[in-house]
Amino acid sequence: MGLVHSSSWMYLVEPSTEDKSILWRVKRVLMSEKTKFQRIDLVETELGKHLFIDGKTQSTMYDERVYHEILVHPAMLTHPRPREVLILGGGEGATLREVLRHRTVEHVVMVDIDREMIDIAKKYLYEWHRGSFDDERVELVIEDGRKFLETEDRIFDVIVLDLTDPLPSSPSALLYTREFYELVKRRLSDDGIMVTQATCAFYTVMDAFLIIANTIKKVFPIARPYHMIVPSFLSSWGFVIGSKVYDPLDLETHELRERIEKRIEGNLEIYHEKLHKTIFVFPKFIEKMLERETRISTDKNPAFIPA
Amino acid sequence: MGLVHSSSWMYLVEPSTEDKSILWRVKRVLMSEKTKFQRIDLVETELGKHLFIDGKTQSTMYDERVYHEILVHPAMLTHPRPREVLILGGGEGATLREVLRHRTVEHVVMVDIDREMIDIAKKYLYEWHRGSFDDERVELVIEDGRKFLETEDRIFDVIVLDLTDPLPSSPSALLYTREFYELVKRRLSDDGIMVTQATCAFYTVMDAFLIIANTIKKVFPIARPYHMIVPSFLSSWGFVIGSKVYDPLDLETHELRERIEKRIEGNLEIYHEKLHKTIFVFPKFIEKMLERETRISTDKNPAFIPA
Amino acid sequence: MGLVHSSSWMYLVEPSTEDKSILWRVKRVLMSEKTKFQRIDLVETELGKHLFIDGKTQSTMYDERVYHEILVHPAMLTHPRPREVLILGGGEGATLREVLRHRTVEHVVMVDIDREMIDIAKKYLYEWHRGSFDDERVELVIEDGRKFLETEDRIFDVIVLDLTDPLPSSPSALLYTREFYELVKRRLSDDGIMVTQATCAFYTVMDAFLIIANTIKKVFPIARPYHMIVPSFLSSWGFVIGSKVYDPLDLETHELRERIEKRIEGNLEIYHEKLHKTIFVFPKFIEKMLERETRISTDKNPAFIPA
Amino acid sequence: MGLVHSSSWMYLVEPSTEDKSILWRVKRVLMSEKTKFQRIDLVETELGKHLFIDGKTQSTMYDERVYHEILVHPAMLTHPRPREVLILGGGEGATLREVLRHRTVEHVVMVDIDREMIDIAKKYLYEWHRGSFDDERVELVIEDGRKFLETEDRIFDVIVLDLTDPLPSSPSALLYTREFYELVKRRLSDDGIMVTQATCAFYTVMDAFLIIANTIKKVFPIARPYHMIVPSFLSSWGFVIGSKVYDPLDLETHELRERIEKRIEGNLEIYHEKLHKTIFVFPKFIEKMLERETRISTDKNPAFIPA
Repeated sequence: MGLVHSSSWMYLVEPSTEDKSILWRVKRVLMSEKTKFQRIDLVETELGKHLFIDGKTQSTMYDERVYHEILVHPAMLTHPRPREVLILGGGEGATLREVLRHRTVEHVVMVDIDREMIDIAKKYLYEWHRGSFDDERVELVIEDGRKFLETEDRIFDVIVLDLTDPLPSSPSALLYTREFYELVKRRLSDDGIMVTQATCAFYTVMDAFLIIANTIKKVFPIARPYHMIVPSFLSSWGFVIGSKVYDPLDLETHELRERIEKRIEGNLEIYHEKLHKTIFVFPKFIEKMLERETRISTDKNPAFIPA
Repeated sequence: MGLVHSSSWMYLVEPSTEDKSILWRVKRVLMSEKTKFQRIDLVETELGKHLFIDGKTQSTMYDERVYHEILVHPAMLTHPRPREVLILGGGEGATLREVLRHRTVEHVVMVDIDREMIDIAKKYLYEWHRGSFDDERVELVIEDGRKFLETEDRIFDVIVLDLTDPLPSSPSALLYTREFYELVKRRLSDDGIMVTQATCAFYTVMDAFLIIANTIKKVFPIARPYHMIVPSFLSSWGFVIGSKVYDPLDLETHELRERIEKRIEGNLEIYHEKLHKTIFVFPKFIEKMLERETRISTDKNPAFIPA
Repeated sequence: MGLVHSSSWMYLVEPSTEDKSILWRVKRVLMSEKTKFQRIDLVETELGKHLFIDGKTQSTMYDERVYHEILVHPAMLTHPRPREVLILGGGEGATLREVLRHRTVEHVVMVDIDREMIDIAKKYLYEWHRGSFDDERVELVIEDGRKFLETEDRIFDVIVLDLTDPLPSSPSALLYTREFYELVKRRLSDDGIMVTQATCAFYTVMDAFLIIANTIKKVFPIARPYHMIVPSFLSSWGFVIGSKVYDPLDLETHELRERIEKRIEGNLEIYHEKLHKTIFVFPKFIEKMLERETRISTDKNPAFIPA
Repeated sequence: MGLVHSSSWMYLVEPSTEDKSILWRVKRVLMSEKTKFQRIDLVETELGKHLFIDGKTQSTMYDERVYHEILVHPAMLTHPRPREVLILGGGEGATLREVLRHRTVEHVVMVDIDREMIDIAKKYLYEWHRGSFDDERVELVIEDGRKFLETEDRIFDVIVLDLTDPLPSSPSALLYTREFYELVKRRLSDDGIMVTQATCAFYTVMDAFLIIANTIKKVFPIARPYHMIVPSFLSSWGFVIGSKVYDPLDLETHELRERIEKRIEGNLEIYHEKLHKTIFVFPKFIEKMLERETRISTDKNPAFIPA
């Protein structure tokens, strides 16, 4: 018997690689719009509310906490007292939500290029932002992230780069290059820390991840690639911390537990003190690839993920 | 290169047979509801507005006229003067629209089991019904078609059966049997004519069509299976006329042209006098299968299409 | 419930239009090769042996007779006594098979660009060619069809063009233009007839068919577009006859029956005398489109089907 | 633009959950057979040779080492000196390969129900088994694993359960129950260790993993669920160690490094001393779910994965 559908019906075909696609059954279409910058579709799949940007899974109700906790907390907790925080991207508002849970935070500037995305988030993604856009510590700036860095002169303790993947056609195309990270570095305080999502960290093609990690290594004295399984991305996802002084690997488990308890409001669902060190450990051959990587992403020759 | 999607995204998977499915790209979802009797989805595909009932293509903006003109006009024009017409099913209102174009028609009773389907048609399918539900000649009855035939005592010149396919689980399951056609015959005037859609007429599995044609042959003195390519159904679609006196094959082309001109309001898009005789001609092996068919659909042993 | 597969497993995705694809369940892969000119895949689907050329259904065990009988017999029977026949394309050997069934035929030249395709046919497609390549009346020429016409000086009674669709990248790209049909005309005897397949004849996009029909009208005194449902092509397929003297519409049914009986070996499965005239009749709006068409396919500006 | 295929063509549809399927592009079909017990398909995808058993990804050239190293080495290295090893399942021969790399191993009994699977592995999966079936320490038994445990009276230091997922219809249905693990325990030496694959460890539905972990906890004094991302499984995969005396968490990193160097032939590709402790750490909510789990899989009421 072939494809049998009792009540099945609509599917979203997400190209995962050139030679593999995911067929997600769509239970409901909540919204579907083309903003000035990107196509945004919010549907309901087996993972609950499921957000696609330009046809790629961005986050889902089921596991958005994996991505957002793991993007935000390792860097934030490595810093002894992050007060001023900058977020580039992160239109759903969930990165903002996780940053705001830190009691040390006095002020967050969130810069997103796409006002319509923010409006959509406010209207449809309450579970993501939880009202964070209304927190009085938040300053929302609608601007191109790179232009913001070039023209801004404020200094931040932590900068979180929650950007879409580097595709040639994406507004994020040049937000993973050495020149860009130099800009980031200049906007960090003397003991500042940055973190970025860094594309897929374990698959047949993972050059972008390796190159981004190596590029950050060239710019920051301390560079720590790490990764975490994100089920809706169907693989282990990469992140990289770039730091001027503090090393996330130096954080002892008991110290981390204390920081979590003292500094973070509410309960974490994914991240915890024992998980912290595990995320910096890779399978052996990937550790070797990371060590041996020599390529760098530059404005002239940027690293892209396969279209 | 594999599946490449620049801006592609949502697909509807329509099981066509056990071993073949159609992937329709969905441009927009207009509505999606479960009524008491069936699942109704209206989306936009390459064929424009595209109506699915229980996951099967019911009709589309591009070619609904093929199905509805070919269902209605051969029977209506074969009758010398159809005044009283009964339609069972046809919730979209397009069969009604085609019947009402006949100037001889004084009164049409349309019986549909699903009030919600009618409401959806009124709201979303104007291009189909063109306001026909408001024509003063129309009497709309919400009832099971078979029960209507059993309890009604009026007599009709033409009865049009625009029913969903006979699936075991469908409300139409027993609307293609000998007992049902006997009921239809009793509600026809002495020179009355009935016509029914009769499932796919040219594919590996076409038993239902053959059996329905043979069943009508057992009940009516004149039985004429015919067919027409319906692009959105991806094959040639079957219909059967059952008639007490008049034979559609006796209609001469010039006489038919005159009837079309005199009796039908507005322009036809598909049907015309020269097309009339072509639809009763089948490929040779199907003509033979029709001749040799001995099976009959009965209430005890009804013909079904493969699920 | 979603996609459920008890024993299902491999599918072939055939892009049917830009916005629709067919998922054929593959029961067996019989062969899969890239020749110098095209990709050839022979698999088993619900239609039995199923041949794909460059990813498009070419013909299937279930319905190859529809296409081949309808391509060959109307033209051959319209000619009073076809002795010399030329076939361009038709690598499967089934067009050759149908031509050879005509007792009047003394000599057939078959020209195909792809020797490997012929070898594959000989090895895997016996049901198609039925040994026709070994018939002593057959002369097989491996050459580009257009070059053959340009350099050959023999004259033929009937020329059958059984070519792949005109895609920009296909070897058939320039085999549907006015210049090409002029070449064909020069190789026809004074009362010669040509016929070509002419792409899809009833769907949202059918420009290629309309243009090919109009192009042949410019070149031949008699041009007759016709069509026939081909189930594996999921729509009505177009053909065009170009003729110097004889008109297929002039053939009376009784005369045709006689010709079939006298001239054709064995039994036909699809084509018969009554079917003959039906295939030249189109839905009303297509008849109008054919009448009004003014575009012509030329070498400089050839008609292509959408990729 | 919709589905566009330059040279694409065949896809394997792997149902991943009820509401999600994976479309793998198939580059080549290497073999496809139904043995007495299961359907085995070996194709080439983007992951190289890709083995499907009953339509589910079993292992791939790209990442079979992830699964097999992580299944075998944690248990083997936790034991101070494994000499006698039993493997149930593991027909590809790669679990055997990893076990044989341990210099302490004197004798391995491998029990698989499906002789044809072994023959296929020998013929097609050299990269997996690397000739292990010919190692003189190996004793291959074709038998149902459970029956073997019931009738065998030998004792093993380590038992590795490399079984297909517990599906109601699978030969492995009752190889994840308390009664089964009791049988395993009886065949272990006084300081013996067992390990089993334990289905998906991080997705919307992960009951089977939780129940298997809890079942082993009821049978063994030490039970350690762990997990590892396996890219071809598109998620984090679960394993559980059951041990009589030794706890894998007690192994210090330096001690582990020494054991790896001393005891394992050749280089590991995935597993290393630092990875060891990371695999026993789960996201916070899964740690809680594991703690709170009370369900047990029994012969009467076995845990199954969703079909």
